Amino acid sequence: METVLTNKDKQVIISPDHPFVIIGERINPTRRKKLAESMAQSRFDLVQEDAINQVSAGAQVLDVNAGIPGADEPALLRGAVEAVLGVTDVPLCFDSANPDALEAALSIYPGKALINSTTAEESMMSRVLPLVKKYHAAVIGVITDESGIPATPADRLAVARKLVQRAADFGIPAEDVVIDCLALTVGADSKAGRVTLDSMQLIQSELGVNLSLGASNVSFGLPDRKIINVAYLALGIARGLTAAITDPTVPEIQTTLMACDLLMGRDDYAMRWIQAFRRREKAKAAAQS
Amino acid sequence: METVLTNKDKQVIISPDHPFVIIGERINPTRRKKLAESMAQSRFDLVQEDAINQVSAGAQVLDVNAGIPGADEPALLRGAVEAVLGVTDVPLCFDSANPDALEAALSIYPGKALINSTTAEESMMSRVLPLVKKYHAAVIGVITDESGIPATPADRLAVARKLVQRAADFGIPAEDVVIDCLALTVGADSKAGRVTLDSMQLIQSELGVNLSLGASNVSFGLPDRKIINVAYLALGIARGLTAAITDPTVPEIQTTLMACDLLMGRDDYAMRWIQAFRRREKAKAAAQS
Repeated sequence: METVLTNKDKQVIISPDHPFVIIGERINPTRRKKLAESMAQSRFDLVQEDAINQVSAGAQVLDVNAGIPGADEPALLRGAVEAVLGVTDVPLCFDSANPDALEAALSIYPGKALINSTTAEESMMSRVLPLVKKYHAAVIGVITDESGIPATPADRLAVARKLVQRAADFGIPAEDVVIDCLALTVGADSKAGRVTLDSMQLIQSELGVNLSLGASNVSFGLPDRKIINVAYLALGIARGLTAAITDPTVPEIQTTLMACDLLMGRDDYAMRWIQAFRRREKAKAAAQS
Repeated sequence: METVLTNKDKQVIISPDHPFVIIGERINPTRRKKLAESMAQSRFDLVQEDAINQVSAGAQVLDVNAGIPGADEPALLRGAVEAVLGVTDVPLCFDSANPDALEAALSIYPGKALINSTTAEESMMSRVLPLVKKYHAAVIGVITDESGIPATPADRLAVARKLVQRAADFGIPAEDVVIDCLALTVGADSKAGRVTLDSMQLIQSELGVNLSLGASNVSFGLPDRKIINVAYLALGIARGLTAAITDPTVPEIQTTLMACDLLMGRDDYAMRWIQAFRRREKAKAAAQS
C-alpha cells in the first residue's frame, strides 16, 4: 500500500517497498524555549533554519507544530507553514489537535499533506476526518480511543481497524491512513516496547496499512536514550514500520535508518549508502581543513 | 524452545524469552596474525586474554576456533579449549569443520557445548550429528546443502527442516538445533539482507527453533561496516534472532543488543540497561581520572 504525499510537483511515497520516510520533528515549540519565543512573536527564521537543516540531513517530510499555550494557533501554524514553504519543497505534516489550525494550514498548502493526528475517539475522528477528505490529505491515526490505549496487540488491531473503517466512511482510502502504534515508555513497563512491536506486525499483516511512530517516548526517563531510540527504529522497521517522526539531524538516526533501508532491500547496489558515506567523509575533511 | 548450554554448573539459555546471547567471536586465528602465530606455537595467552575480555564485555558463550592452515587442529583446538576453561566458566562453542578437532574438544569439555557448525549436506551431517548426540551437545545448522544456499525463504525453510529432521534421526531434539540463516553480503546483492530476514521469520514461526547468525558478512565490501552490522542485529532480533556470533568488545554492538533486550521485553524494570549505563559511566570516570 502506498501513501503518497506531495508538495507542488514533489512527491514522497510511504510504503514498505520504498526507502523509510523520516518526518522531521524539530519544528515544534514544545520543550524548545528559543523556538517557542520567536514563534510567539510570529518570527519564523528559526523555523526556516530547522526546515533547511532537517531536509539536508535526510528528512523527506517535515512535521510543523505551532502549539504554544495562549497563542493563536491557526495563525501561527499558517505562518510557520508559509515560512517553511518559502525555503523547501518537501511535503509537510501538520501537527495539531486543533481543527481550526489544521484547516488554516491545509487551506494554503499546495499539495497532499499529512495530518498528525487523529485518535480513534469519535469526537476526534468526526472533526479531523472531514478535513482530511475535504483537502485530500492523508492522516496519522493513533491507536487510542475512549478507553485509552489497549493493552494487547489484538485490541490495538481492533482500534486500527476502527480508524481505517471510520476513514472509509468519510471516503478516505486505507492507503491514506497511517497508523501510529504508540510507543509507551519501557522505563514504566518493561513489556511496553514488545507490545508495540507485536502490534505493528499484526496491524501491518492484517490491514496492510503503513505505520509511523513517534519513536522517542519509548526511552523516556532512562539513561542513554539515543541508543534505545535508534535500536527501536530498527526493530520497528523489521516489523513493518515505514515512517517515523524523528530527528534526522542526529547522525546515528540518519545512518541507522539508511543501513536499515540497505538491509531491507530498499537500496539498489547500495548506492544511497555509498553516497551518504562519501558525503560524511567530505564533511569530515571539510571540518578538519 | 530453549537451547540450554552449560559449562560445569554454569548454564546459558538461548530462547526468545531470555536475553539475547552473544557468542564471542574473537578466539579465531583467521585474519588475526598475532593470534595465529602464538596459537601455532601452542601458546594460548592471547586466547585467554580474548576470553576474559569478551566475557567482561558481555559474551555469554565463547566461540573457539583453532583453524590454522598446516597445523594439527585437534591438538590446537583442545589446547585452546583447555586454556579458555582455565580462565572462564561460560559455555563454549567449538568452531571447526574437522570432526576430529570437534571430538578432541568435546571429549574434555565438562558440560553441554555448542558445535559450530554443520551444513545440511549429507556428508557433513553424517559426520557431525553423531558427535552432537554422543557428547550431548547442541549444534548450529547452516542453511546450505549440496545445491548451495537457497534463494528464497521458502527454500531456506526446507533446508532448515531437513537439518532438524536429520538431527531427530540421530536422537537430537529440535531445541538443540540452532539455525543460522546465513547473511550474504548486500554489497553483491541488494536483496540479500531482506531474504535472510524473511527466512528468519518464516523458520522461527514454522519450526520454533532458535536462530543464530554470523552477522558481519552482510556488510562485506561496504564502507562503515559497523553501522550496518549493528543495524542488522537489531533487524534480526525483531525477526526472531536469539543469538549471534559477534564481537562484544565493540561498544556499539554491546549497547545495541542490550537496548534490543530492553525493547523486546527481556529486561525487567530496565535493570540491566541501567546497570550497564552505570558501568559505562564508571569506566568513563576512571579513564578521565
